[in-house]
Order: sequence, then C-alpha cells, then structure tokens
Amino acid sequence: MRALRWDGSRLALARDVPPPKPAAGDALVRVALAGICRTDVEITRGYLDFRGTLGHEWVGGVVEGNAGLVGRRVVGEINVACGRCALCLADLGRHCPTRRVLGIVGADGAFADLIVVPERNLHLVPEGISDTAAVFTEPLAAAFEILDQVGGVSGARAAVLGAGKLGLLVAQVLGRAGADVVVAARHPAQQARAARLGIVAGTPQPGADIVVDATGSADGLRQALALVRPRGTVVMKTTVAGEHRLDLAPAVVNEVTLVGSRCGRFAPALEALAAGRIAVEPLIDAVVPLADGVGAFDRAAATGAMKILLDAREG
Amino acid sequence: MRALRWDGSRLALARDVPPPKPAAGDALVRVALAGICRTDVEITRGYLDFRGTLGHEWVGGVVEGNAGLVGRRVVGEINVACGRCALCLADLGRHCPTRRVLGIVGADGAFADLIVVPERNLHLVPEGISDTAAVFTEPLAAAFEILDQVGGVSGARAAVLGAGKLGLLVAQVLGRAGADVVVAARHPAQQARAARLGIVAGTPQPGADIVVDATGSADGLRQALALVRPRGTVVMKTTVAGEHRLDLAPAVVNEVTLVGSRCGRFAPALEALAAGRIAVEPLIDAVVPLADGVGAFDRAAATGAMKILLDAREG
Repeated sequence: MRALRWDGSRLALARDVPPPKPAAGDALVRVALAGICRTDVEITRGYLDFRGTLGHEWVGGVVEGNAGLVGRRVVGEINVACGRCALCLADLGRHCPTRRVLGIVGADGAFADLIVVPERNLHLVPEGISDTAAVFTEPLAAAFEILDQVGGVSGARAAVLGAGKLGLLVAQVLGRAGADVVVAARHPAQQARAARLGIVAGTPQPGADIVVDATGSADGLRQALALVRPRGTVVMKTTVAGEHRLDLAPAVVNEVTLVGSRCGRFAPALEALAAGRIAVEPLIDAVVPLADGVGAFDRAAATGAMKILLDAREG
Repeated sequence: MRALRWDGSRLALARDVPPPKPAAGDALVRVALAGICRTDVEITRGYLDFRGTLGHEWVGGVVEGNAGLVGRRVVGEINVACGRCALCLADLGRHCPTRRVLGIVGADGAFADLIVVPERNLHLVPEGISDTAAVFTEPLAAAFEILDQVGGVSGARAAVLGAGKLGLLVAQVLGRAGADVVVAARHPAQQARAARLGIVAGTPQPGADIVVDATGSADGLRQALALVRPRGTVVMKTTVAGEHRLDLAPAVVNEVTLVGSRCGRFAPALEALAAGRIAVEPLIDAVVPLADGVGAFDRAAATGAMKILLDAREG
C-alpha cells in the first residue's frame, strides 16, 4: 500500500509498504480523506522525534474487524491508551502516560491507504456528515475541549488569537455556546473567511473574559495576557517546542487562569457537525491526491494556509 | 512621626514625617506591629518603582475616624479601590484598575507610627488573636485565596514548593482544607519548622493534583510543571519581575491549569486565626523596634529568613 512517511529527515511517499495487521480489538480501516494538521508540519521540523506514517485527522471505512463495524464509515480518536491506569479509568485516556498517538507518537497514522486503529477509538460517522466535514472531527473535538475545561462561556466576552483553522473552529464553538467572540484578524482574506463563518473578526479589545491563543506562535501567550481581564481565563491551544521568554508576573498579579488545552472528546464534535452547527468548508484550501502528498505538505506549511486534505480514494 | 521610607535608592528611618491626615471615610491608625514581606524587600530592589513608606502587613489601633472604630484593634486590606468600577462592584476591588496599594503602589504603608486607611478596608481583630498573629492576616489571606480559586482541594494530593513564610501558611491552609500536603524542604531547619506546624516536609513526588509555587524564584514554575499530574493545577504565588525562559508545551500537552494567585479576603484568615487552626509563631524570626528597621530589612532579605516584625510601640 501507499503511505506518506517521515524518516527523521525526509518526507516521502512509499508505494510498497506492507499493509498493517490488526491485532485483537483493532480494526483495519481504508482511509478516504485525511487532513494535514500543523502538528504534522511541526513533526517534519523535528517536533516529538516521530518516525513513520503521519496523519491523525481522517475518515474511512472499516474493512476488517468487529462484524458490526465492517463496512461502516468511521473516524477515530488519536490516543491509543492502556485502558487500565488511573487516568484511563477516569475517562482521560488522552492523558494515559503510556499512550501511543496515531501518526504522532509510536504508531503509524492515516496518510496511507490503510490504518490500524483500536476499535474502542472509533466513532461511526452519521449519514448527514460529508467526508470532508468528517475529517474535521478531530480538530473540532480539540475546539470543543475548551467547553469541557472552562466554565462561564455563555455570555462571556471572548477573544480568539489566530485566524487559522483551529482558531476559526474555536471561534465557532465559543460563539455557538453563547460567548460574544472576536477573532483577531487583520488581513482582508481572513476577515472575509471569518464573515463566511458568521464570526466577528477584527481587533479584540482588552478586558476579555476568555482569550484563546490559537496562534501557533510563541508570541501568542504574551498577546493573550495583554487582552485578558483580571481573574479572566487564557486558553493555551498553542504548543511551541522549547523554552521561550515570558513575563508571567502580570498573570499572577491579575490572578489570571491559564488552561492548557489539547485533544477533546469526539462525541460533541460529531453532534455539532451532524446538526450543521459548525461550518468547515470555508476552512479547506484544497483536496489533493495522496500521491501528491509531499507537495501538499509544502502548501500546508505556507503562512496563512488553511486545511489541505489528502484523498486516498484517488489512487 | 517616624516612618521607614524608600526614596528609590535608599531605605531610611525618617523621624520628622508629618502625621498623615485622614480624609472623609478614612481612619487614622496607630501601628502596633508590622511585618516585613518579601515584596517589601523586592521594592528596595526596584520592583514596582514605589516611593514612600513601606509596609502592608500590620495591626494597630484606630485613633481617629468613625466613632465605632476609635479605640478598636484592627487590620486592613491593602488595596484601596475606587468602589465604583465593574471589578469593585463584583467584590473584586483587589483588581480595581485604578487601585492604590498601601505601601506598594501610590500610598504610604505601615512601617510608621501612624497610617491612614479607608475605613471600608478595616477588619476588627477578635480578642483571641494576639498582635503577632494578627500581623499575619494579610499573608494568610493570600494563602486562603487559593481556596477561593481552586476547587477539589479536599482529598487532593498537594505539593507546596517553597518552605518560606508563605509556603508554610499555604501548606497549613491546604492541609486544614483536607488536602494531603507535602512541602518541599531539604534543609533540616526547614523540616523541623514544618514539623512544628504539623506539616509533612520532604521531596514531593510527581503526579500531584495541585502544586503551589511559593518559591519566590523564577525556577519554581518549571519545578511545579514537573510535579503536577495531567489535568492538574499549578497555583502561581511567585511574582518574579521581568521575562524568564520557560517551556510551556508540557502544560498544553498535559492540559495543566495554571492559576495566578495574589491577595485574598481577610475574613477567612481572621476566622482561622481566631479558631487557632493556623499557627504562625514558628514563622517569626524576630520582633525588632521600628527604630532599627533598616537593619531588620537586611535580616529579612537574607536567604532562609522567616518573618521579621517591626514593633512601633517601642520607641
């Protein structure tokens, strides 16, 4: 089969990869579409020291596994947890200390014709959700994670920093949850895209109750701290590897709460997509055949790029 | 009157300071005892660019003001708020954007014979609280602030970094609230002091639900992030001026919540002191006459120093 693999120095499409073998409890899934995430791009810059097939946002059809699943359209949670530790038993397998993460840590991902996924990670995709929308389940779940972590969203003044894919998903989630949201966006193209999503774009004013840093930049947290009100909340959606200079004294003096936020549960994301409450089409720049995956990565890495989807159906 | 004043380059005891004049709504208080706080020491190193009489932890007797207050023993909250803004109306005058702070920002403090304090900032000191204990109301309120900000303390595994004055107050507060607390303390003197306070001292193990950084050092937050469990809480009690290098990626990946924490309400602190639930005597290194305040500052600034109290009654 084909797989887009990172060997630590080079990204290449291999055409002769042996199909993965599902173990007990696993399903073998034929990938339909998969999305390139900023994390994928970061991995090709050395982040997390991963080797193997990239890709953790995908939709596909089960070809082997539990009879009730074969032939069904599915998406899958990315953390492969032990299922037995205290965090797993608290329904927080996303934080299992021995977890593997599909396409990110110790397990091959979905930029391939086939992927093996634990059946307990799978979610059936409701009829009303298109394949292109279903690929957004994983990043949308990460946006919904904020509602699991932060209270008082309804009626809050919220600012979202970063008008990229994640920022525009977060802004929709917060807005649909009743927050008064402004996405920081200076460029006309960003503002037009936000408008198509029903999101107010502009320059957030200081004094926000909730500020989400989805900039993907080391400077985002500093900006967020300048905008949040005393006793307000900053949601940290940006993972920047390594040490960076930061003055946290204002966060202490103003008693700001900073909440690290990563993956989320798939259920609320799928519900919102099925109900048409979240729009994703304006977030897609292109759908590219898997065979052209290397070039698609360059495009996804460009400044201002939105989502590039890899289509494994076109072979 | 006498006042221990910082002029931006030198700390000196002035003996000819005109007594302050209370305005409407103010009380004039004769200071009995006042404590030297780490913030006072930091101010003499340039923090916050303050000029004037230092001191914000004190107990004294009202000599002018509302008839019901004259002759009463009082302590006072340190933030002088406008009383009219949104934060003040939300009972968060501690965050009023135009606040002055006694002995810290724009208002003379308590290392003096007399201090002017808004009457609404005053709290009567119950009979059962000694003067030496009453001086700890302000830092103890800062410790109790954590209970106002962080839920789930009862039954939590907590680690306190910093076995100084604030750390040992925080450890008592968390322990009395039902947490299983370990204070990081390597030195035998620290461990002995902790033992006298009924606090477990030693080396906290990773996986804590709550970690409080009361180190006063730029490295404290890094240590705290290494000890907190995924989805756990780090309370930031350390204010270090300026930018410092920090890797926050683990906080994002592990979805840690960081809570900036500063001043607190006086009421729970006074209740706990009156009930004898918090011990402060082991936290006192010395009681020094106000006339010897300059030397007392040097002593308070030394590594490992505990609380130095200035006694304005002598002299």
